[in-house]
Amino acid sequence: MFYHVKELQYRSKPDCPDPVYAKKLQEVLGGQFGEISVALQYLFQGWNTRGDGKYRDLLMDTGTEELAHIEMLATMIARLLDGAPDVELDEAAQNPVIAAILGGSNPQHAIVSGLGAMPADSVGNRWTADYIIASGNLLADFRANLNAESQGRLQVCRLYEMTDDRGVKDMLSWLIARDTMHQNQWVAAIAELEAKENIVVPSTFPRELEKQEVAYTLFNLSAGNASAAGRWASGPSMDGCGVFNYVEHPVPFGKKPKLNPAPPYIFDTPLAALRGPEDYPDPSMK
Amino acid sequence: MFYHVKELQYRSKPDCPDPVYAKKLQEVLGGQFGEISVALQYLFQGWNTRGDGKYRDLLMDTGTEELAHIEMLATMIARLLDGAPDVELDEAAQNPVIAAILGGSNPQHAIVSGLGAMPADSVGNRWTADYIIASGNLLADFRANLNAESQGRLQVCRLYEMTDDRGVKDMLSWLIARDTMHQNQWVAAIAELEAKENIVVPSTFPRELEKQEVAYTLFNLSAGNASAAGRWASGPSMDGCGVFNYVEHPVPFGKKPKLNPAPPYIFDTPLAALRGPEDYPDPSMK
Amino acid sequence: MFYHVKELQYRSKPDCPDPVYAKKLQEVLGGQFGEISVALQYLFQGWNTRGDGKYRDLLMDTGTEELAHIEMLATMIARLLDGAPDVELDEAAQNPVIAAILGGSNPQHAIVSGLGAMPADSVGNRWTADYIIASGNLLADFRANLNAESQGRLQVCRLYEMTDDRGVKDMLSWLIARDTMHQNQWVAAIAELEAKENIVVPSTFPRELEKQEVAYTLFNLSAGNASAAGRWASGPSMDGCGVFNYVEHPVPFGKKPKLNPAPPYIFDTPLAALRGPEDYPDPSMK
Amino acid sequence: MFYHVKELQYRSKPDCPDPVYAKKLQEVLGGQFGEISVALQYLFQGWNTRGDGKYRDLLMDTGTEELAHIEMLATMIARLLDGAPDVELDEAAQNPVIAAILGGSNPQHAIVSGLGAMPADSVGNRWTADYIIASGNLLADFRANLNAESQGRLQVCRLYEMTDDRGVKDMLSWLIARDTMHQNQWVAAIAELEAKENIVVPSTFPRELEKQEVAYTLFNLSAGNASAAGRWASGPSMDGCGVFNYVEHPVPFGKKPKLNPAPPYIFDTPLAALRGPEDYPDPSMK
Amino acid sequence: MFYHVKELQYRSKPDCPDPVYAKKLQEVLGGQFGEISVALQYLFQGWNTRGDGKYRDLLMDTGTEELAHIEMLATMIARLLDGAPDVELDEAAQNPVIAAILGGSNPQHAIVSGLGAMPADSVGNRWTADYIIASGNLLADFRANLNAESQGRLQVCRLYEMTDDRGVKDMLSWLIARDTMHQNQWVAAIAELEAKENIVVPSTFPRELEKQEVAYTLFNLSAGNASAAGRWASGPSMDGCGVFNYVEHPVPFGKKPKLNPAPPYIFDTPLAALRGPEDYPDPSMK
Amino acid sequence: MFYHVKELQYRSKPDCPDPVYAKKLQEVLGGQFGEISVALQYLFQGWNTRGDGKYRDLLMDTGTEELAHIEMLATMIARLLDGAPDVELDEAAQNPVIAAILGGSNPQHAIVSGLGAMPADSVGNRWTADYIIASGNLLADFRANLNAESQGRLQVCRLYEMTDDRGVKDMLSWLIARDTMHQNQWVAAIAELEAKENIVVPSTFPRELEKQEVAYTLFNLSAGNASAAGRWASGPSMDGCGVFNYVEHPVPFGKKPKLNPAPPYIFDTPLAALRGPEDYPDPSMK
Repeated sequence: MFYHVKELQYRSKPDCPDPVYAKKLQEVLGGQFGEISVALQYLFQGWNTRGDGKYRDLLMDTGTEELAHIEMLATMIARLLDGAPDVELDEAAQNPVIAAILGGSNPQHAIVSGLGAMPADSVGNRWTADYIIASGNLLADFRANLNAESQGRLQVCRLYEMTDDRGVKDMLSWLIARDTMHQNQWVAAIAELEAKENIVVPSTFPRELEKQEVAYTLFNLSAGNASAAGRWASGPSMDGCGVFNYVEHPVPFGKKPKLNPAPPYIFDTPLAALRGPEDYPDPSMK
Repeated sequence: MFYHVKELQYRSKPDCPDPVYAKKLQEVLGGQFGEISVALQYLFQGWNTRGDGKYRDLLMDTGTEELAHIEMLATMIARLLDGAPDVELDEAAQNPVIAAILGGSNPQHAIVSGLGAMPADSVGNRWTADYIIASGNLLADFRANLNAESQGRLQVCRLYEMTDDRGVKDMLSWLIARDTMHQNQWVAAIAELEAKENIVVPSTFPRELEKQEVAYTLFNLSAGNASAAGRWASGPSMDGCGVFNYVEHPVPFGKKPKLNPAPPYIFDTPLAALRGPEDYPDPSMK
Repeated sequence: MFYHVKELQYRSKPDCPDPVYAKKLQEVLGGQFGEISVALQYLFQGWNTRGDGKYRDLLMDTGTEELAHIEMLATMIARLLDGAPDVELDEAAQNPVIAAILGGSNPQHAIVSGLGAMPADSVGNRWTADYIIASGNLLADFRANLNAESQGRLQVCRLYEMTDDRGVKDMLSWLIARDTMHQNQWVAAIAELEAKENIVVPSTFPRELEKQEVAYTLFNLSAGNASAAGRWASGPSMDGCGVFNYVEHPVPFGKKPKLNPAPPYIFDTPLAALRGPEDYPDPSMK
Repeated sequence: MFYHVKELQYRSKPDCPDPVYAKKLQEVLGGQFGEISVALQYLFQGWNTRGDGKYRDLLMDTGTEELAHIEMLATMIARLLDGAPDVELDEAAQNPVIAAILGGSNPQHAIVSGLGAMPADSVGNRWTADYIIASGNLLADFRANLNAESQGRLQVCRLYEMTDDRGVKDMLSWLIARDTMHQNQWVAAIAELEAKENIVVPSTFPRELEKQEVAYTLFNLSAGNASAAGRWASGPSMDGCGVFNYVEHPVPFGKKPKLNPAPPYIFDTPLAALRGPEDYPDPSMK
Repeated sequence: MFYHVKELQYRSKPDCPDPVYAKKLQEVLGGQFGEISVALQYLFQGWNTRGDGKYRDLLMDTGTEELAHIEMLATMIARLLDGAPDVELDEAAQNPVIAAILGGSNPQHAIVSGLGAMPADSVGNRWTADYIIASGNLLADFRANLNAESQGRLQVCRLYEMTDDRGVKDMLSWLIARDTMHQNQWVAAIAELEAKENIVVPSTFPRELEKQEVAYTLFNLSAGNASAAGRWASGPSMDGCGVFNYVEHPVPFGKKPKLNPAPPYIFDTPLAALRGPEDYPDPSMK
Repeated sequence: MFYHVKELQYRSKPDCPDPVYAKKLQEVLGGQFGEISVALQYLFQGWNTRGDGKYRDLLMDTGTEELAHIEMLATMIARLLDGAPDVELDEAAQNPVIAAILGGSNPQHAIVSGLGAMPADSVGNRWTADYIIASGNLLADFRANLNAESQGRLQVCRLYEMTDDRGVKDMLSWLIARDTMHQNQWVAAIAELEAKENIVVPSTFPRELEKQEVAYTLFNLSAGNASAAGRWASGPSMDGCGVFNYVEHPVPFGKKPKLNPAPPYIFDTPLAALRGPEDYPDPSMK
């Protein structure tokens, strides 16, 4: 159960409105690695954790914080849209800034949301739960989280460089710092679990049931041997259970597949049309 | 540029058709962490790598292999659908297996794809590029890759348990082994990059520009202190640049936001309607 | 900014696991009118309200409560999936319940979420922000909210009838009651705003700028006069600004459109191909 | 069954082409509350009405009219794109209007649709049936319709302000007037049904089966009491069946949930990894 | 502008309800090649035709008919859902038909649409305008139409085989016949345009501007020469402008690409991390 | 199974960077008819072909080539984004080219992909498998392929006109030529199959089971007789099995449908509310 206070976790006020930047900033609110994604990803992982304890609590702590970040970004975007000018094409002739606003702002910020933030990314794609995961396996999921915080901080840093507004930069410097913490925290949680489980997810699948002969092999399927120079191509494997090896000229292990014809009620191409003696001589299919 | 040979990387033939399992197996072909996702994710990362060398080659090697896995799964699914029965509701009264097939198979396998595999997941959602990322920052992206291989192997292991078909299990044991390699390989590549860049992505953003006072802080935003027991709550941070600290009772740093009214041409709720003296007494907004 | 407590707003525990019902219950968690939709719709409306006061507070109160409902449903679904059986097609021959589970459960609950709730609806469509709206005009948005609570309560009532589990019914009876309140509350808020603004949204667009001669007209475009019997076809209009009238045989007010040909660099069908003297005799286009 | 005449319901001809405005106008053709949405929403509601009579007829009348509005907007957009210039980046240096066109127009209007309208919104999202509803409960659905007409008229009014073209404004003034009628008409239909059913949807669910003790309660979950000032917080409820009450300090009614561990074939995090004595001391889970 | 009559183009009444078949039949209502797709595809093509005449009229004739087919299918699906039973998991033990209904029906038909048809396909994916095209080039678009009618008739034929209900089969036999006409009609229209424009779309792009040396070449990129046996590998090309030729061992025409590093404000992997002397020796990149 | 070589099928290097054109060029990489679509469409068709021989080989040859085209376009886009400038709104005042870049470039090319190509179209919609088809019926599918190559070549030709960059034009002239081949090739394959199967798909459905009386009829459902002038309205049908006929005044063959009321557990509008004696007098429903 949640409680809300009206105060923001951190201040969120630009020096000046800028509808073009408002459009860009949507990316880290409603994009693939925006705050909606991390909030819902962590909360669903927390709710689905089968077992109580520190991991569930950590997920709920962090997911709840991300809700506050959604709020900060929504507030910032609404303020960047403050008094967004009502511009038309013929005005652009007089003023290139008008031209930039006409092209660089998101028309839905005026038409749809009435100068409010939207649950969408910087090109207007609406947020979708396709972006998130909660698998029930925490080592897998913490890796998803570390990725999300890495991509997220990367995007915020790029956005930091795209503006001179001190108010915006001030808020972004908060988010960047929090992503530093969150990367550190997931690295720490991953280290704990890897110490208990080793590195291969899931750890409980019996190793003898996989094809162990190819479990540490790099197949050189793109011509050129540059990849043979990496740590992954020789020496003990990272999980300590095997030895990396490199196959320079990989060959198929399987055969050419032949599918049986479909039954008539499927109305696939009839065999008679599919082949003639000249083009389909394989006797096994006759 | 690519070349194709007709032989499969590994054999892909079930002992018996099973349209219900065919539906489930779609998850690791066309789902969020299926083979289409990893193939296109690695290839796009490779094509976008700005710089040549072993990482680009590794991405192209692995992405090219994943194309072969799409092929193996597509072949397996087509064979699981072989001669899929044409069943109707009234037949279910006689035979619970008919009932299971009616409910548990994907009707699009008959109606749309004519007993072929589809670029879709186990409930029929079509594959979307929302699932993948290529950011230009390889440390971030290798973490995405490690996550994808972790989620992918987890799903294949779950599917392994859902069938007794020896042919299916044989092929899955190949995919599980390859995911073991791919997890090991991304761990190795991540270790290399972390050794050069430290762990926080992106490494090149100046640390003094973030709010360093909250860069190693865990805010206890979900009641209960279980999360204080983890490695992430005290001691030196994982990046070696700070000390973790834990804030048991976090408070807002910002103020309650107040947004300015919208201009008239936006037709938001008029201020006169939004408030009356009784319900909006705050003098600062008058 | 938000705070979380571990306790649920209301208890959420089924008497027995039931993976088939778990799939259905997803509808009111992650479907078009599920709890994710109302939570994010109200929060975005609150964050975007330009002006402070009771409406913003009401939105934040209610949006925050809906987060608790997401949590209750996620918990319930995880428990309905408890110990979900690992069933295969050949087992269905022995037991029709196995057949029902094979067909009626969501395979992603096992393969993807590891027996956890998903941000998806009852057929597996992932939640999308296409479902929600925050327009900046509160009268419009409260109507969206009243609709959402109406559809939501309707769906929960239908789900109430689909189970005999007392634990599930107990929780649903909580959600149904809360939707009763929320319908009442949006009706009340709408009544307040309509009293100030009249009923047509937006109220501030000058009436003389619309084609007033058709602002209260019902065009009978589907043969048969049944619709002439309603309140909307005669008498004073609901906004008190006009008189309803009914046009039994509506005719076009406009002309047949003719579009100019496209410029050559668009490579549309060339005019010469588009027409010949025989099939395009209209002189006005020559 | 439908018949088409070539004449438009109302004229749809701009004074001048304007590809930037064409992009914006797409919102009310193919956006969330555009004409495709209302047309298909009303038609599906009509087709699904179980019972004949005036409501079904009204839905078919209005849905059929909305098809004509799609046609008018498609025609207008094609004409706004007439002779759309073929501009390149280096030409922008000479002319800010070129810059505005390069940025503000939708490239798919040239590349994909060949200067034709698209079933998409103002940022290019393709129309999706996620936008619409037909629930079988007409009171619920008429509320959806009133919302759609409110959002739709709001968006058209905003678009009216974004152009000086008299031809465009003339057509929009038609659509605005029709939305005035449609808002009035759904208000009238809702009033009729509410008079018969009272206001809570669905009306036929037995009230004693819901948790009546919280059916008229406002929980103050966002700090601050501004919402206590509204009609919804005290006095008789809008449905006349209860009394509103306000809970200033809401507390959880449920307990902290604990989920059982998953079975081994799900490969969730193993319990041994999930906890240690130090971080998981709760005896009830041992 | 459109007019509607209440009578159906053809009768649409099953002998018996069948919720499992109702789910399947959704495919040809709201699926990729269902009636919504062809209706909106033809109407948008018609509205966007730049030029009047017989092609535009044909598109409007056919698009208007498809609206009637949506109506027939919506009616049929609602009737197949008539009195859909309210079944629960424990009842399946008694009756395999219950098991089949639990698994094989679409839960949204009860929970969301209240026993009405939905704008969705047979697995519940909502209809999306991603399915359709109107390019402004009629030869291209008529090929899209011929494809749509081919896929559509194929799916209806498959559905015809999946039921014994005479009422359903009767209606499907209407749709199959209409698809026969529509395939014939688009073939005729294509033949007309090909006679005027030759077969390559677009016909107005100057042939000398394409790389003519590879305009009739089949590259054998999948090992094995079976494809060399086809009409497309030798002899005069179908457009009469060239001669087909077959390249058994295709080689790259381009070079290995090298991308320049990104500027610092993009925060891609730094060059220093990307390479070391050992793994990136190419002097051209130093 | 696939092999990759680092060399491109054809060179892919612009004379100059141009981020605005990079955005546009995305259409033919990740749009509805871009290279991802044709690659995956052909490969899935190939893998699903039930029967071996020249058609399967042709599909694999061509699908494999399209992978090389994805690679060429990804490389070109990355190079068009080379050193993309970091521009802000206030700089636009000085330079209309800045304004054009601000508006005309895709912000995700900087924020998300770090100056790399994306699996998305020219307005940022991510690629989706909704775009493709593999039905198991090759005549149907080759028509889909011919359409895809027609739309694809059309789009590339339009893009060719939108740039003066000789490097870009050089690469596009390769793609245009390949699309010429691919159109020719699918026309040839279609001709072969039509010679064996006649033109109506599927060819194996018994003609006597369709309503033959309307299998060659054009219904004039859009007023005006222009469409009567076409080849499709009179004379022998294209399949040689019938005679086209034209119905100037088509009438319904079916009756007005009446749906039965829903059972109470569906909570649709109650009949008592749906009708009164005055508005629902039809005795057949009482």
